[in-house]
Amino acid sequence: MSVNQPKKPTVVTDSPILIATSLSEWLAQTVIERDRIGGTPKAERDIIRDSSLLTLSIPTQYGGLGGSWAETLETVRIIARADSSIAHVYAFQHLMLATVRLFGSPEQWEYLFEQTVSQNWFWGNALNPLDTRTVSVQHEGWRDFTGKKSFCSGALDSDMLIASARQDGLDRLVIAAIPTQRAGITLYEDWSNIGQRQTDSGSADFNRVRVEENEILVNPGPLGNTFATLRPLIAQLILSNVYLGIAEGAFNSAKHYTQTQARRWLLSTADRQPNDPYALERSGEFWVTLESARALNNRAAELLDRAWARDTRLTESERAEVAIAIATAKVVSGRGGLDITTRIFDIMGARSTAAELGFDRFWRNLRTYTLHDPIDYKIRELGDWTLNDQPPRPTFYS
Amino acid sequence: MSVNQPKKPTVVTDSPILIATSLSEWLAQTVIERDRIGGTPKAERDIIRDSSLLTLSIPTQYGGLGGSWAETLETVRIIARADSSIAHVYAFQHLMLATVRLFGSPEQWEYLFEQTVSQNWFWGNALNPLDTRTVSVQHEGWRDFTGKKSFCSGALDSDMLIASARQDGLDRLVIAAIPTQRAGITLYEDWSNIGQRQTDSGSADFNRVRVEENEILVNPGPLGNTFATLRPLIAQLILSNVYLGIAEGAFNSAKHYTQTQARRWLLSTADRQPNDPYALERSGEFWVTLESARALNNRAAELLDRAWARDTRLTESERAEVAIAIATAKVVSGRGGLDITTRIFDIMGARSTAAELGFDRFWRNLRTYTLHDPIDYKIRELGDWTLNDQPPRPTFYS
Amino acid sequence: MSVNQPKKPTVVTDSPILIATSLSEWLAQTVIERDRIGGTPKAERDIIRDSSLLTLSIPTQYGGLGGSWAETLETVRIIARADSSIAHVYAFQHLMLATVRLFGSPEQWEYLFEQTVSQNWFWGNALNPLDTRTVSVQHEGWRDFTGKKSFCSGALDSDMLIASARQDGLDRLVIAAIPTQRAGITLYEDWSNIGQRQTDSGSADFNRVRVEENEILVNPGPLGNTFATLRPLIAQLILSNVYLGIAEGAFNSAKHYTQTQARRWLLSTADRQPNDPYALERSGEFWVTLESARALNNRAAELLDRAWARDTRLTESERAEVAIAIATAKVVSGRGGLDITTRIFDIMGARSTAAELGFDRFWRNLRTYTLHDPIDYKIRELGDWTLNDQPPRPTFYS
Amino acid sequence: MSVNQPKKPTVVTDSPILIATSLSEWLAQTVIERDRIGGTPKAERDIIRDSSLLTLSIPTQYGGLGGSWAETLETVRIIARADSSIAHVYAFQHLMLATVRLFGSPEQWEYLFEQTVSQNWFWGNALNPLDTRTVSVQHEGWRDFTGKKSFCSGALDSDMLIASARQDGLDRLVIAAIPTQRAGITLYEDWSNIGQRQTDSGSADFNRVRVEENEILVNPGPLGNTFATLRPLIAQLILSNVYLGIAEGAFNSAKHYTQTQARRWLLSTADRQPNDPYALERSGEFWVTLESARALNNRAAELLDRAWARDTRLTESERAEVAIAIATAKVVSGRGGLDITTRIFDIMGARSTAAELGFDRFWRNLRTYTLHDPIDYKIRELGDWTLNDQPPRPTFYS
Repeated sequence: MSVNQPKKPTVVTDSPILIATSLSEWLAQTVIERDRIGGTPKAERDIIRDSSLLTLSIPTQYGGLGGSWAETLETVRIIARADSSIAHVYAFQHLMLATVRLFGSPEQWEYLFEQTVSQNWFWGNALNPLDTRTVSVQHEGWRDFTGKKSFCSGALDSDMLIASARQDGLDRLVIAAIPTQRAGITLYEDWSNIGQRQTDSGSADFNRVRVEENEILVNPGPLGNTFATLRPLIAQLILSNVYLGIAEGAFNSAKHYTQTQARRWLLSTADRQPNDPYALERSGEFWVTLESARALNNRAAELLDRAWARDTRLTESERAEVAIAIATAKVVSGRGGLDITTRIFDIMGARSTAAELGFDRFWRNLRTYTLHDPIDYKIRELGDWTLNDQPPRPTFYS
Repeated sequence: MSVNQPKKPTVVTDSPILIATSLSEWLAQTVIERDRIGGTPKAERDIIRDSSLLTLSIPTQYGGLGGSWAETLETVRIIARADSSIAHVYAFQHLMLATVRLFGSPEQWEYLFEQTVSQNWFWGNALNPLDTRTVSVQHEGWRDFTGKKSFCSGALDSDMLIASARQDGLDRLVIAAIPTQRAGITLYEDWSNIGQRQTDSGSADFNRVRVEENEILVNPGPLGNTFATLRPLIAQLILSNVYLGIAEGAFNSAKHYTQTQARRWLLSTADRQPNDPYALERSGEFWVTLESARALNNRAAELLDRAWARDTRLTESERAEVAIAIATAKVVSGRGGLDITTRIFDIMGARSTAAELGFDRFWRNLRTYTLHDPIDYKIRELGDWTLNDQPPRPTFYS
Repeated sequence: MSVNQPKKPTVVTDSPILIATSLSEWLAQTVIERDRIGGTPKAERDIIRDSSLLTLSIPTQYGGLGGSWAETLETVRIIARADSSIAHVYAFQHLMLATVRLFGSPEQWEYLFEQTVSQNWFWGNALNPLDTRTVSVQHEGWRDFTGKKSFCSGALDSDMLIASARQDGLDRLVIAAIPTQRAGITLYEDWSNIGQRQTDSGSADFNRVRVEENEILVNPGPLGNTFATLRPLIAQLILSNVYLGIAEGAFNSAKHYTQTQARRWLLSTADRQPNDPYALERSGEFWVTLESARALNNRAAELLDRAWARDTRLTESERAEVAIAIATAKVVSGRGGLDITTRIFDIMGARSTAAELGFDRFWRNLRTYTLHDPIDYKIRELGDWTLNDQPPRPTFYS
Repeated sequence: MSVNQPKKPTVVTDSPILIATSLSEWLAQTVIERDRIGGTPKAERDIIRDSSLLTLSIPTQYGGLGGSWAETLETVRIIARADSSIAHVYAFQHLMLATVRLFGSPEQWEYLFEQTVSQNWFWGNALNPLDTRTVSVQHEGWRDFTGKKSFCSGALDSDMLIASARQDGLDRLVIAAIPTQRAGITLYEDWSNIGQRQTDSGSADFNRVRVEENEILVNPGPLGNTFATLRPLIAQLILSNVYLGIAEGAFNSAKHYTQTQARRWLLSTADRQPNDPYALERSGEFWVTLESARALNNRAAELLDRAWARDTRLTESERAEVAIAIATAKVVSGRGGLDITTRIFDIMGARSTAAELGFDRFWRNLRTYTLHDPIDYKIRELGDWTLNDQPPRPTFYS
């Protein structure tokens, strides 16, 4: 199925924030229909390709826009307000680039940054570290990747992949940057979930895929030094910003509906629904949640940028501080968002459940994405930090 | 679209509870697919017709099964565990019968009870008192109903309707019991909402529908005496039991999934997910909520049965006590259910969002149905009762 | 310090509920002052002695009032509304009698029941099973109890004690019923805590106390059979009813204050504070909590009475059902009460913090008493029950 | 009663933050005893006098320390961690100075700033705008203040007062800066409340007090222009920082207790209480709350400093932004703090209720102070902002 495309946005500015805003408005026009049909958002991915934002996090010296993490994450959040699937795959572009930067050698990331700029590559993900079915066997000068991999967000229609495999006989991860078209790689259109329906987070199959030595990120390798352990933190802060964007989008939509269509309840003392004492109360509570999440996400992004600038001088305790700030933002954004996406309906009333309005997508998207890793263990991590002064142990999820 | 029907359940017993349990199991086999396609659940409605439960609340002297409200509501809750759309239209059968009983004269309800039994009528709803577009004009010996009506749950495929109209020039409701096939009635298949997708709660159009004098329930008429004001309370307790049934169904499904498919988190200290300290905690909290809701719903049903038995001797203060008990049960069932249907996923993990598992339907159904009337005003009502000793003023929603 | 005593209530009825109500009103007159000074409530204990309620749970055939557990617990809850310290020590009278009944032989409990009636004994507690400092050494025909014991509620001014000691060299408890005046027992007036200030829950010292063989409850002994494991459940349900009584008392007091003294906020749309939309909302929420707790406590008491009647035929699964019902009631009463005792002030406003009004005592009492055993582990227990069908393992706390 | 004073802290630095930290540690040593006895903390007020912090918010050109609001509020928060009564009266010093600055003419505040520095004045509060019993009558060149005034925090032992009176016959406030020793002023030691027990927030009586024309702040006068309406915002942000300081102090104390004295529960799977899964969870939740509050309070202080620098050029929309940021911080700090001060006990266990540990003071102080103005109306204000784009209407409470 395909969606009747609205006219493409004319990009009249080179400000990433304005570009993202323009994209967001454009995506909003079709998002309800695309949520329904799912599948690969080919036209939307191509607009992203045309937008120049795929190079936002690449330093200017390699031809990128040289955006900070704060700026990059803000574009993610803006897009997520309209379409959290696109925001997800767009953000993972930058996560994949960061992976190259953090796990690879200068030769690798300089080359891949430049190629990304010149070829306008869209990167996809095939890294899920919890799925150990893909196995890598060492050969002379290359490795063979074979097996399945689940949750490969944005791999379909991508140009390059970050793929992981378990090193044969060892409990160690091998991570490579390879072209999506490499022989032996099959990507399945089998993502059909209740939310984030256009993220193509389906499965991949590697059948004797040949991976060259220089495609493998070994220096320092996965989580290979303290600086490299920023990678999972970037992933977590991306999620946090998508959560917040979803919550903001949900409230904005509910506000518009309430102002234009909601009816006051027959027992309300107010003249119209937006003045109802309980509609005001809930909105006030939503504001408090959103403002908390915004403050925490912004602060976490600042700390991340500072840590990023430290490069390999980054210490464990500096890393811990960023990790904690990000985990805090993520907990508030995720939990708060679930509350907001559920309770906006109480302000809008019964008629807001019409399927064509699509107000349930916010909850479905957030509920799906907040299960990436358990919120309870994030809270436990924060508890260990505050009660026992124990920093989070770096893993692919913390 | 139609669903491949499982083999019909063989009804081996005349116990309403066992019949309902058997129906519930049968409905569960197709509910995920039917939630997807929406529309009129014709086969399922026919199975309900065959089940004898359409006469459950009709006294035995008129040929019914003579169930109490407690028993009738228990069958509703059992069915709602599997399929809250069917539970809704099935429960409204009994609400419509109660409407006839409470608003009509003995001649009317005795006749309609007997006909319901002999013709095995399935009643539908076209009463929405907040939609005043249908107008009734008085003629000699009959009335003309003309105009639109929304939220007509279960009207499609029904045999009889309870329909309401605004009395021309007055702010007063006329309510009639008429055959669904009466000339001038058009029912639209236009219910397409995010939840309760097979309740056919779409719109109706009355075009100069002739309603005979003896079809109008005027003695005592809508909320015509204290006993008659039990009608909205029955409606509210039906909703409350459907809410609870949804929440119970959600937890039962999540429990099954957790026991059979959920994976422990990599940082968990437990051997398997069902022993994870936070999975246990959440389950314990769900239990507390469900037990509270069960105790309150059961108590409310007992009070309703007692009030029902009082007939027209029912006093206002007795009525108030039932009203408060029902409102209390409804608040706990609705709020608690929203929490449970959102958080079951935290126990089950990321893979539980697969669309084919359909776990989001519990939240979508409950979120839709809990907007019937605002929970905030139920709580306010309870506040006025406890802080100011002020009983709820009888309306169609309290 | 002593309190100027109000005139003693004239007991005009033999209904335990009315007696408790009368006591509750009498206690309310001095409770704020007595909360301030703490110490042993001698006059109040003597009024309890005079009230006949010390024999409420003793069967009529032994001269007691023959109250059910439901009735006994209702008297506890009524007294707790005014004075949760007195409710505590009064309730422990019946817990001590139940201990004798459940752990002792018929010869023992028949004798002790009769003596309690004829001597009007007030029993105190020296059983804390978590404090293992008191050690019992076996001698010929008697045992020596030596060591300290903490949390001995109601031991001061008691006539009889239930005392526990660790059996020398074994991890097993010896429990005895002995006169408080027995040589070697010292009770300290060292209970000075933030709440439950007149429970005398201080420490005791046993110095070579001689305990006769026939004073030791060995047949079946502590938790010696399934029936005997009802003992901790009775303790838990007593706590739950005291929690609920505190919450009810707090709301009743706040309601009175709000009706008579609270001022509307300058921005309120209401004419007076009891009609403020947020005062109504909070009151409505309190009602929902209180009603849930009442329904659950009442149901738990019914199940306990039924289990009690089963005597030694009680099965493990019957026991589990009671245990779960009681744990559920306790969680709702404790948590809900903490919320109510904190938030009543929001309805009353700033002037309600005057020390002479003593509104903080509700929170202090409840906060203290809800720490008896951790609520988190009660919830975990309920989670294991509902997620894993695992009944609570009988201990002195479950 | 008096408290045995610990050795005075040696002030070894001129950094206000370090001075406040040193004061905080010194105050912590006696705070539990002083909470018990209440009354005027004379010795503590004198140490504050000696600390130089009374001039912190006065610009250096008038001889003050020239601290920003961010810095001043940080000292408040630091002191509040140990002693929220002292923090309150200390912070009100700066609120009174801001009142002079915002409501008075340059001649007035320049003079009063210089005198405050040279005389080391400690200012007290007699402004409560909700208490309209004090009436001002105009005479030739002076005004007569007569009547009572409640909630006069820090007036006892003060050198100067900000006093308000209702203008005779008008619903308008007259505000004056006068010496506390002025004839006709009586201050009562009648503050005896459940919390903030050493704030001396009792009542005052004005008996024909002569107030000179040049002591009255009329240019621009109370809330006399947009800049002047920052005054209530400063008051609100002071409260917010005291709330946060209380919550931080509560958690810090609980952490210390848990690390040194708390016992694991017998059913815990952890080796010691600080590793208990539920202790970690609660601590993690506390952290999330505290971090949210810190981020919001810091951001609000930055905005306040920016608005303060705008002076009379401050626009209404700039003012609105500060007002909203402050209200948001206050809601999170107040609500979050009530939760933390209640639930720290769950981590610490039953023995933490010993009166000598004084852990209940955090809840009592916060509960008292959070009633200054209703949190529900703050949330409503935020709701009107976010749902209706309506800024808060400036009053003495918003």
